Amino acid sequence: MQTNLDACCGFDDVTVSLAEASGRVLATKVTAQLDVPPFDRSAMDGFALRGGETSGAGDYNPLALRIIGQALPGKPFEGAVLPGTATRIMTGAPLPAGADAVLPAEFAREVGEFVEFTAAVAPGRNVGCRGEDVVAGHEILEAGRRLRPQDVGLLASIGHSSVSVVRRPRVRVIATGNELAVPGNTRGAFQIYDSNSITLRALIERDGGEIESLQLLADDRDLIKLAMTEPGLDVILVSGGSSVGAEDHAPGVLAEVGELPIHGVAMRPSSPTGIGHIGNVLVFLLPGNPVSCLCAYDFFAGRVIRGLGGRSIEWPYLRQKAVVGSKIVSAVGRVDYCRVRLEAGLIEPISTSGASILSSTTRATGFVIIPAELEGYGPGAEVEVFLYD
Amino acid sequence: MQTNLDACCGFDDVTVSLAEASGRVLATKVTAQLDVPPFDRSAMDGFALRGGETSGAGDYNPLALRIIGQALPGKPFEGAVLPGTATRIMTGAPLPAGADAVLPAEFAREVGEFVEFTAAVAPGRNVGCRGEDVVAGHEILEAGRRLRPQDVGLLASIGHSSVSVVRRPRVRVIATGNELAVPGNTRGAFQIYDSNSITLRALIERDGGEIESLQLLADDRDLIKLAMTEPGLDVILVSGGSSVGAEDHAPGVLAEVGELPIHGVAMRPSSPTGIGHIGNVLVFLLPGNPVSCLCAYDFFAGRVIRGLGGRSIEWPYLRQKAVVGSKIVSAVGRVDYCRVRLEAGLIEPISTSGASILSSTTRATGFVIIPAELEGYGPGAEVEVFLYD
Repeated sequence: MQTNLDACCGFDDVTVSLAEASGRVLATKVTAQLDVPPFDRSAMDGFALRGGETSGAGDYNPLALRIIGQALPGKPFEGAVLPGTATRIMTGAPLPAGADAVLPAEFAREVGEFVEFTAAVAPGRNVGCRGEDVVAGHEILEAGRRLRPQDVGLLASIGHSSVSVVRRPRVRVIATGNELAVPGNTRGAFQIYDSNSITLRALIERDGGEIESLQLLADDRDLIKLAMTEPGLDVILVSGGSSVGAEDHAPGVLAEVGELPIHGVAMRPSSPTGIGHIGNVLVFLLPGNPVSCLCAYDFFAGRVIRGLGGRSIEWPYLRQKAVVGSKIVSAVGRVDYCRVRLEAGLIEPISTSGASILSSTTRATGFVIIPAELEGYGPGAEVEVFLYD
Repeated sequence: MQTNLDACCGFDDVTVSLAEASGRVLATKVTAQLDVPPFDRSAMDGFALRGGETSGAGDYNPLALRIIGQALPGKPFEGAVLPGTATRIMTGAPLPAGADAVLPAEFAREVGEFVEFTAAVAPGRNVGCRGEDVVAGHEILEAGRRLRPQDVGLLASIGHSSVSVVRRPRVRVIATGNELAVPGNTRGAFQIYDSNSITLRALIERDGGEIESLQLLADDRDLIKLAMTEPGLDVILVSGGSSVGAEDHAPGVLAEVGELPIHGVAMRPSSPTGIGHIGNVLVFLLPGNPVSCLCAYDFFAGRVIRGLGGRSIEWPYLRQKAVVGSKIVSAVGRVDYCRVRLEAGLIEPISTSGASILSSTTRATGFVIIPAELEGYGPGAEVEVFLYD
C-alpha cells in the first residue's frame, strides 16, 4: 500500500521485524508513544535520598541517614524516602518516591541500620529523569532514513518489535545466450559459463533489490518475450543480446511490448545498452560482455534499484583522489570506464582491459571515469578513483 | 575443518553457493581449471576470414570472398575457412578453423553468395583469444580476499557453483536485567524495553558474525552461568551487570569458569567493560547502558568478530576530517567517545550525551575519539569524525 502524508513519498511500504530492519529505509516517520526512560531512575550504585539534607556533609561532618530498604532494577522500593532516611539503590533502579538524588556508594559507609555519608549531593544529581532519552509524542526518526543498528535499538526502546520500511524493488534477471552453460554443470566444447547473472545477483542485493527470479535463456525470441512480459516485479535486467544483431532479440521485444527510448550509449564499454519500460516495469538491456554488463549495471540499473528502494542514487563506491602514473587513453565524444590499479599511490590503467576480460575488474583497485569531452588523462593529472572495495 | 597451506591461516572454512558468496572472505586461493574463454571467439559481429587476404582492401579496391556458412554463439561453423572464403560470425561465436581475424559488418556488403569488403584487417584483429581472461593453472583470487560481486562472477566463469569461505564466527548474545521487557510485549510499570540485544544483532550481522542465539535473562547467577557455559560458539556478548554491584553476576561467573584478565577500562562511556574467555570462547561483558554497550562493542567486540571471520579489524566507519565548532571536553587519563553532529561543516558535540541516552547516537552524525592524553579539543582544532552512516 502507499504510505501516508508523513511518509517517504510515493514508496510502497512493508512491515518487517526489528531483526531484519537494520539497513532498511524507514517508510514513515516514527513518533514515540512512550517516555524513555519511562520513570526516574538511578544512574549510579549508591543511596537514594533527599539531596537537600546532605548539604554540608563531608569528611569532617558526616551525615547519618536510616536505611529503610533497597531499590533494584525492575524491583522498586515500594515506600517513600522521608526526611532522615535513604534506600540502597542500584544503577537503573526506579528512584523511590520522596528521593530526588543518588549519593554514590564510594562516599557512604553502612553502620548497622544507618548509612554515613562523607559528601553532599545536589537534588537531581545522578538521577536519569523520565523522558531524558525519548519524550512521548516527539518524532524520533524521520521518513526516508536508512536505519543504523542503534536506530533499530531506539525503536526497540520505545517498545516496537517491527517497523514500516520501504519495500525492496523486485528484480528479474534474464541472462540470454545459446553459448551459456550453468556453473557447476558440464559445459559443451563451445559454451562458456554464465557469470553475468551471478555478478548481477550480488550487485542487486548490495543495492537493496530483491531477486524475483534469475533465468538463463537461449537466444529464442518467444522465450525472451515470455520472460520479459510475465508480471509481478519492478525492474527487469536482460543481459546479452542487447545490440542490433540477428540474435539480439531483447531490443525488438522491448520495442514491441513496451518502449525503448534509449538504445546505444556513447560510452566504452557498454555502448550496446538499452533502457526502456513495459508499463511500470523498468527494463535495462545490458551487454553480454561481463565488464560491459557490470559497468552498465552500475551506471544505470543500480542507481534505479537503489532509488526505488529509497536509498541514495549516488555511486556506491568510496572515492579517492590520486595522481595518474601512466597515460589513460580515451576518445572525445564517449565516456570511458577505465579499470585501474593504485600502485605506490599512482593510478595505473589495467592493460588487458577489453569488455570481455572480467578479471580486469578483479585485478583492479577500482575505476576512473573519463568524461566525454576529454581525450584521457596524462601522467601527473589528479583524478578521482572509485574503489571497488 | 582447518584449511590447507594455501589458505587463510588458522581459519575454519565452509563451502557456500556462489549466490551467498559476495562479501564473504575466501578461505583458500582459487586456481582456474579452465581457460576463459575456452576457445578463440569473435569480439564483433562481422565476417571470419584469413586476415592476410584482406591486405590492400579499401573503398577503391574491394575484396570479394565466398560466404560458406555462419558461426553463432554456442553454434559454431563446423567446417574450415579456406583461402577465398569467409563465414558470417556473431560476437561471442567460436572462430572457425582456418580463420584468424574478424572484419566488422560495417565494412562488408553481401552480394549473392559473396561478400565484398572495403577495409583490411590484420590477423588476430577482433578475435578474443582462448585464455585471454583467465589461464588454466593460474591463481585468480588469493586466500583472505573479501569477495566482490565481480569476483563471484569470475568464479562462475571458471565453472564453480560454490566456493570455500572463512566460517562466520558464531556469537551468543545474553542481555541481562530484571528490568528488561521484550519489545512488542506488555511492559511492567518499572521495566524498560530491551534495546541492547536488538542493536547488537545488527552490529554482529554488519561485522559478519552469525547469531547463535539471543537470550534475555533475569539477574540470576545460575541462569547467567548456564547461558555462558553452554558450548557451541566462538564469542559471547553479555550486556548489563558488567560492573561490581550486587546484581552484577557475569564478572563473577566469568572469573569462576574462565578468566577475566580485563575488567574496567579507562574510557567514557563503557568503563565497566570486561574482556575474558572460557576456553576458546571469547567473552565480552558490555555495560547495560545502551550507548556504553554500543561503544564497548565497537571498540572491542566488533573488531574481534570481524577478525575471526577474516575481515579487517579496522573501524567499520568512514572518517572525515572537520573543524571543531564548540569545545569538546574530556579528561586526561581516559579515552572519550563523544557523539557529535556536523553542522555547516563544524563539529558540534551532542549536549545530552549520557551513557543511557541512546538517541544521542541516532541524532549524531558520528563520533570523535579523544585520546587519554588530551583534555579535549578546542574550537578550531581539526579532528577526525567517524561517520555512523
